[in-house]
Amino acid sequence: MKLTELGEFAFIDRITPGCQAGDPRRVIRGIGDDAAVIEAGDGALVVTTDLLVERVHFLRGTISFRQLGYKALAVNLSDIAAMGAVPQEAFISIAIPPTVSVEELDDLYDGMKDLAAATGVNLLGGDTTGSKADLCINVAVTGSVPRDQVLYRSGARPGDRIVVTGTLGDSAGGLTVLLERPALPDDAAQALLDAHYLPELYLTEARILAASGAAHAAIDLSDGLASDLRHVCRGSGVGAIVDERSLPLSDALRLLCAATGHDILRLALAGGEDYRLLATVDAIRVEELRAEVAVRTGRSLFDIGEIVPGDSLELRRADGTIGALTMSGFDHFPVPARPSAAEAP
Amino acid sequence: MKLTELGEFAFIDRITPGCQAGDPRRVIRGIGDDAAVIEAGDGALVVTTDLLVERVHFLRGTISFRQLGYKALAVNLSDIAAMGAVPQEAFISIAIPPTVSVEELDDLYDGMKDLAAATGVNLLGGDTTGSKADLCINVAVTGSVPRDQVLYRSGARPGDRIVVTGTLGDSAGGLTVLLERPALPDDAAQALLDAHYLPELYLTEARILAASGAAHAAIDLSDGLASDLRHVCRGSGVGAIVDERSLPLSDALRLLCAATGHDILRLALAGGEDYRLLATVDAIRVEELRAEVAVRTGRSLFDIGEIVPGDSLELRRADGTIGALTMSGFDHFPVPARPSAAEAP
Repeated sequence: MKLTELGEFAFIDRITPGCQAGDPRRVIRGIGDDAAVIEAGDGALVVTTDLLVERVHFLRGTISFRQLGYKALAVNLSDIAAMGAVPQEAFISIAIPPTVSVEELDDLYDGMKDLAAATGVNLLGGDTTGSKADLCINVAVTGSVPRDQVLYRSGARPGDRIVVTGTLGDSAGGLTVLLERPALPDDAAQALLDAHYLPELYLTEARILAASGAAHAAIDLSDGLASDLRHVCRGSGVGAIVDERSLPLSDALRLLCAATGHDILRLALAGGEDYRLLATVDAIRVEELRAEVAVRTGRSLFDIGEIVPGDSLELRRADGTIGALTMSGFDHFPVPARPSAAEAP
Repeated sequence: MKLTELGEFAFIDRITPGCQAGDPRRVIRGIGDDAAVIEAGDGALVVTTDLLVERVHFLRGTISFRQLGYKALAVNLSDIAAMGAVPQEAFISIAIPPTVSVEELDDLYDGMKDLAAATGVNLLGGDTTGSKADLCINVAVTGSVPRDQVLYRSGARPGDRIVVTGTLGDSAGGLTVLLERPALPDDAAQALLDAHYLPELYLTEARILAASGAAHAAIDLSDGLASDLRHVCRGSGVGAIVDERSLPLSDALRLLCAATGHDILRLALAGGEDYRLLATVDAIRVEELRAEVAVRTGRSLFDIGEIVPGDSLELRRADGTIGALTMSGFDHFPVPARPSAAEAP
């Protein structure tokens, strides 16, 4: 059987049995969240790993080596943040084809080192090896969090407000700029490209949410809001209603959509790689959390909707009508084949 | 500059500055040993990672998927053992080209699961993604060890005996069987192929050595005895004399060399991927350690030489003469280009 017939999620379900053969007491959370959570004395050790492969995750020539280094580390730090944890150490494995120069590798590592320095992460090596064709970068990151503060996907409760830490759809907008080269003011185009290549991180927000006790669940937005919110709802046995009017949208994305005719709602709901944090929090504490985030980071939390009983994901349109929130956003526009697309109603 | 002009070790030296930007107190050992060592309460967290890339580390068709799964995990467990630690959790990232079937992936994971179950390791997922050309498998493993028992490469002391946990050169012998198909009794050929595909692990020996306080340094034999012992001597600021007559050699390897004319000494000294442990231990405690290993594992420790002052690596031949122990063994036979070959006198 081909893997494409089975799908990624079904494949993971297929290989999972028999994986936890060691002492189960060590494992607080195994497969199925943003990161694994392992007992570590009073605290929890959080571990995540991501493998980036050339021609699958990036195309040489469309991303600089410095950006690639930044992003390879950033997506892992985002997973650690989504557990409420502080990232600590990163372990880099890299398979280098002969077409990559030492100077390009310097740039790649500079991109990682800059981000590591900005986030207090130690890069502790890993493995350096050759590759015949494609550049491959695996990053594994460990993080630390008090055991009672870990934010799982599975903790959302009806009545929780759904908050996100930044605007939605900008990374997909950056990809559109890259692919379609629309006529756009330079600063708008650059803002979208930066969102795509150099996603912001929300490590302080993660700790504010986790330490508050007011956040019940969290995930980072890697596949797109509709898909990632679905993971939270499934994991928690709840539904959600998202308010279209509350979705934070950047001016740059609005300009892009005005210039190209792209559906801004679709980019915001189904665009991937935003790497904002999404959390569900106690409704009466949203303002307090927003104030703390503003004071400590100068950024904001955006309240985009509510967790509800049941299992429906819905969107409340600007005109007050309510419809299903699908994997492709709202408009049922066909999504390129991906396993989870089958979940859309 | 091409990476091949610089060499792997010089490249690692080049990228190392600026890597440890986080809290230095957390990091007990960063880059440069079999694994990184991180403070974890009373104990130490040991982390290693290895990236296997198709056409560089393995050829599909010459290794079964089950063997590949076993070996991908085994080489990492061996690194954990070389620090004196107990492996605990493994994180698997895999990039899968469309030419690999689900059934082959089942076999790959079965190979990992069998070894994980035998060693008490939990497989905690990681990342599953696509690849255009080559199958890539990254395994990251965490382990645990009391802080005062970690075995570094840098602790060897003059007067220490050098011990290894098994015969040398068998994996290189297995590769020779694979490539040259020599006329050899089936059981001998199979023993060498098994050594190549399914290397034994020495987790109990690692803990006996580490807990004894008698072992001062350790490394696993991945590049070949001459190369790996050199790492220990450089790291410790010492020299070594290896006794040719004490080198443990299997009957299967002797048969292979008799049949093919290969130099058994060269295979034993320069053949890679044996994954035996090498440790340097207090001379007066070798017998006690050997007895404990025999009782608890039914295996042995082989005393192959002595750590001496200075920085020379020497081989005492069977006839009593002493010569330099080089990266290519003893015979100065040209080695395929590799960075460290330049170190050979």
